[in-house]
Amino acid sequence: MSSNPVTVADVGEFGLIARITESLGMPRDVLIGPGDDAAEVATGESVLITVDVLVEGRHFRRDWCSAVEVGRRAAAASLADIAAMGGAPSAVVVGFGAPPDLPASWAQQCSAGIVEECGRAGAALVGGDVTAADQVIVSVTAIGNPPETGAVLRSGAQPGDVVALHGRVGWAAAGLAVLSRGFRAPKVLVDAYRFPEIDYRQGARAAARGAHAMVDVSDGLVADARHIAEASGVAISLDPESIPVPDPIATAASAYNVDPREWMLTGGDDHALLACFPDRKSIPKGWSIIGSVEQGEPGVYINGHRVTRQGGHTHFG
Amino acid sequence: MSSNPVTVADVGEFGLIARITESLGMPRDVLIGPGDDAAEVATGESVLITVDVLVEGRHFRRDWCSAVEVGRRAAAASLADIAAMGGAPSAVVVGFGAPPDLPASWAQQCSAGIVEECGRAGAALVGGDVTAADQVIVSVTAIGNPPETGAVLRSGAQPGDVVALHGRVGWAAAGLAVLSRGFRAPKVLVDAYRFPEIDYRQGARAAARGAHAMVDVSDGLVADARHIAEASGVAISLDPESIPVPDPIATAASAYNVDPREWMLTGGDDHALLACFPDRKSIPKGWSIIGSVEQGEPGVYINGHRVTRQGGHTHFG
Repeated sequence: MSSNPVTVADVGEFGLIARITESLGMPRDVLIGPGDDAAEVATGESVLITVDVLVEGRHFRRDWCSAVEVGRRAAAASLADIAAMGGAPSAVVVGFGAPPDLPASWAQQCSAGIVEECGRAGAALVGGDVTAADQVIVSVTAIGNPPETGAVLRSGAQPGDVVALHGRVGWAAAGLAVLSRGFRAPKVLVDAYRFPEIDYRQGARAAARGAHAMVDVSDGLVADARHIAEASGVAISLDPESIPVPDPIATAASAYNVDPREWMLTGGDDHALLACFPDRKSIPKGWSIIGSVEQGEPGVYINGHRVTRQGGHTHFG
Repeated sequence: MSSNPVTVADVGEFGLIARITESLGMPRDVLIGPGDDAAEVATGESVLITVDVLVEGRHFRRDWCSAVEVGRRAAAASLADIAAMGGAPSAVVVGFGAPPDLPASWAQQCSAGIVEECGRAGAALVGGDVTAADQVIVSVTAIGNPPETGAVLRSGAQPGDVVALHGRVGWAAAGLAVLSRGFRAPKVLVDAYRFPEIDYRQGARAAARGAHAMVDVSDGLVADARHIAEASGVAISLDPESIPVPDPIATAASAYNVDPREWMLTGGDDHALLACFPDRKSIPKGWSIIGSVEQGEPGVYINGHRVTRQGGHTHFG
């Protein structure tokens, strides 16, 4: 008679899969759901595919994020990549590694978080693999349908394009700074770190309006703008003053004596969308102009100076 | 001036990705390869998708398998799942976790192994994510095209069907037993553990010949036959005597004083294909009849007795 929580070792691989899959509803374009050797999902003439891996202690801490939040963040990282191609996410599969003593409820809640984030993106969880590992590992592969006008690449930016942003930058970085200092408030920043707020439809909308190039900001605004600049062979000039510093970020930055723009220019995890449009009138409602594309040595420029530092997440550091 | 190998921390996330992707050739149905937020792959009206995760210390040991072999095994696990639906694999994406001190060459060789196995299955490596982790983790998601006649499920077996097998069973388990006892020979068994030999076309061939149900043997012959039996609501009668014990397995079993059929009935990792055909004349060349489908309490029966033990791999054990 123990009051210890039921662990993944207690319920076993197949028991855990059963607990996770029994509650899944399947939309119409899922032709075969979980439970067979593979799932089957309806597509057009092609499919977009991407994978992101979250590792405990590197990308999340279980004392900083709930299982639902880890699930949401893991799914968001991949779903945002589909949106950043101008696509519409349709399905995800999940590779899940867990220490045998992980509570089974944690795994179920993480799965629920993945399902919740998928729901926001119009996608379904259609399959997965669970295995023992030393750390919690959540690997989410997302697939989706490209836009009718063709996927929007990083390499399509052209001199004369207008650079625009949809979504938040710096919020998750500020929330991480708060948590790293041992605080749990302000809640609005901590929540921004714990789970992103992404409007997944904006990627398809940008594609429909003729965006030449697009990324989601997962490495940091400067780093991801540089990805476009280098892939397109263009100079991207950013005007940080065009992005107002939100009050919660300004307050936290002041308290910690840091430059709030550092968070906004280098922080990832918010998964804002950054796109280059042919002109101002192409830019969809809700997007903000933050720069321009010019001829010149490929790179990112602020106030005429090339930003040479990394300005973004690096792993293995 | 150090003679230490270059590590993944030395080359960094983006350096490692560059090293891996620079050598990749892309077949024609890969519309967008690695390097953007997502890849794009041509499909028909639907796509099959599956994921498998290999974890160091659980599914492989670096002193037992080379990096190329780990890559081949990781890819094979997912590619065989696509084949087991009757499908033709088209692409994979890889989530790769590694300790920062892992030699970069190991990661590159593992990737080369994935590419090699993909080549055998007609698929391409189109994307991935690399991150730091305590153990080496290789998560491979495979997509593929279902057969024109529709994907072959586990749930389609019918009383009167003939059960047939293509490929090897027990070889990898015997090889693992050899390695576990500290030996490196007989090489033919050790190699069978280190990298599977799979004829990926056989899945599509079985589908074309009207197979009612199919799985790949990854949990063990009895365990995977049980998956079909339970999904289809049928009794599957297996005749172990119909599968000759190969000489290397017989010799090793005799030396270790174990029953060779234990390996053959419960060993996974060879990824043989097990299918139920409507009649004997439907069975493609190269497949062996090993049992029959009957009415009765769902399960696997040998010599009229229901096999109640697990008979297969379990994780978290």
